[in-house]
Amino acid sequence: MLQNIRVVLVNTSHPGNIGGAARALKNMGLSRLVLVQPLDFPAADATARASGADDVLSGAQVVATLEEALVGCSLAIGTSARDRSLPWPMLDPRECGGKAVERAGMGEEVALVFGREHAGLTNDELQRCHFHVHIPSNPDFSSLNLAAAVQVLAYEVRMAWLAAEGAPSKVEKAVDASELATLDEMERFYDHLEKTLVDIAFLDPDKPKHLMARLRRLYGRNSVERTEVSILRGILTETQKVARGESHKRKD
Amino acid sequence: MLQNIRVVLVNTSHPGNIGGAARALKNMGLSRLVLVQPLDFPAADATARASGADDVLSGAQVVATLEEALVGCSLAIGTSARDRSLPWPMLDPRECGGKAVERAGMGEEVALVFGREHAGLTNDELQRCHFHVHIPSNPDFSSLNLAAAVQVLAYEVRMAWLAAEGAPSKVEKAVDASELATLDEMERFYDHLEKTLVDIAFLDPDKPKHLMARLRRLYGRNSVERTEVSILRGILTETQKVARGESHKRKD
Repeated sequence: MLQNIRVVLVNTSHPGNIGGAARALKNMGLSRLVLVQPLDFPAADATARASGADDVLSGAQVVATLEEALVGCSLAIGTSARDRSLPWPMLDPRECGGKAVERAGMGEEVALVFGREHAGLTNDELQRCHFHVHIPSNPDFSSLNLAAAVQVLAYEVRMAWLAAEGAPSKVEKAVDASELATLDEMERFYDHLEKTLVDIAFLDPDKPKHLMARLRRLYGRNSVERTEVSILRGILTETQKVARGESHKRKD
Repeated sequence: MLQNIRVVLVNTSHPGNIGGAARALKNMGLSRLVLVQPLDFPAADATARASGADDVLSGAQVVATLEEALVGCSLAIGTSARDRSLPWPMLDPRECGGKAVERAGMGEEVALVFGREHAGLTNDELQRCHFHVHIPSNPDFSSLNLAAAVQVLAYEVRMAWLAAEGAPSKVEKAVDASELATLDEMERFYDHLEKTLVDIAFLDPDKPKHLMARLRRLYGRNSVERTEVSILRGILTETQKVARGESHKRKD
């Protein structure tokens, strides 16, 4: 489905940005790059910055007009600085990724269109796009590097694609619930901890103060895995042996 | 609140990437860049790629170690390729942005840590981070340009910040940020813990296995208060005394 999405760069000045865009595309699983009248391409700088995305670069289609670049597309989304005189349906990058993937998934051809490094897209070019997308940025320093802008939109396309694939979320859980210590295992740990603290004379059973409460709060605030409890209890057992003189302690 | 978030680049080879990262930061409203032993900085290439983000570049702090870069931080998130032998709490970029903004909003100091262009972060460096973040990418071409990776995470920070600004978070604080142990305090705790485990012969310095990594993962997964670190270190000190025969141990 991602092969239905093309990235169009209009009148790019710096070939390094074309290479950077090619790399960003390939990193995000996209492959189709269309260049409208690039100033300097092919170029060594483009190849260097592509850093291995040579297939995307060599497969790039070079055309003379935006119209040609959009042939076959039923959805075009153009990047915009947003402060345009002409109001237009505006997306943020996340919505842009969602819409591109949704329509590409229906078999449509989709284009993401990027303008010149300094001047962006002209009003005429923007009006050829169905939607505009604006990357939220610092109002005092709002112009992103071209390859960086391509990276952000391509990233949101990939996030939307992964979500649509139902790709089992690529995020691993911090802990697996089945591996968490149960409450009674934690109680046995606290009991063991308390006895050990008495053994090393850190805790006075006659004046316990709030020590165990504080330790319960520390370990109880968060989930602890069963294997972690085993390690902690192993430390306690070893400490008790030392305290009871049953263990070789380290000489130093 | 964004001023509580720093971006740390470790051993960057290409100054152009430092400049690109500075620009991405400023575009997204971030301003704090910390460079751990950059290979070549300051450099003309960095200034050129910063493209006007000169204040971020000239304000960049250059330090000798990751430890120095993280001083004062209570949350560090490191970029990772994910196929690590040691499982670690893993975030996607969106979750990373959410967590960074949430914690920065509570007054905590937060670091996003990026590794070397080709080799990333070492396992030791990754273990100093509470969470790892992986940018989902094409498995066949997964390595993003460094400045592009900075752009993606900085973009997600900005998206989370805009969302939070829009809706004052209802999240109650579990702990007060001013009372949290900083990363350097935690490093001293881990150091103390490791020495004590050697003293009681629980840890064999010649065959450490993954023990310290597992303990770092347990304590690092969650915020630990300064008073809690004091208690834990008090226990360690007492354990060491017992192990060294300097303390009355309890008779039983």
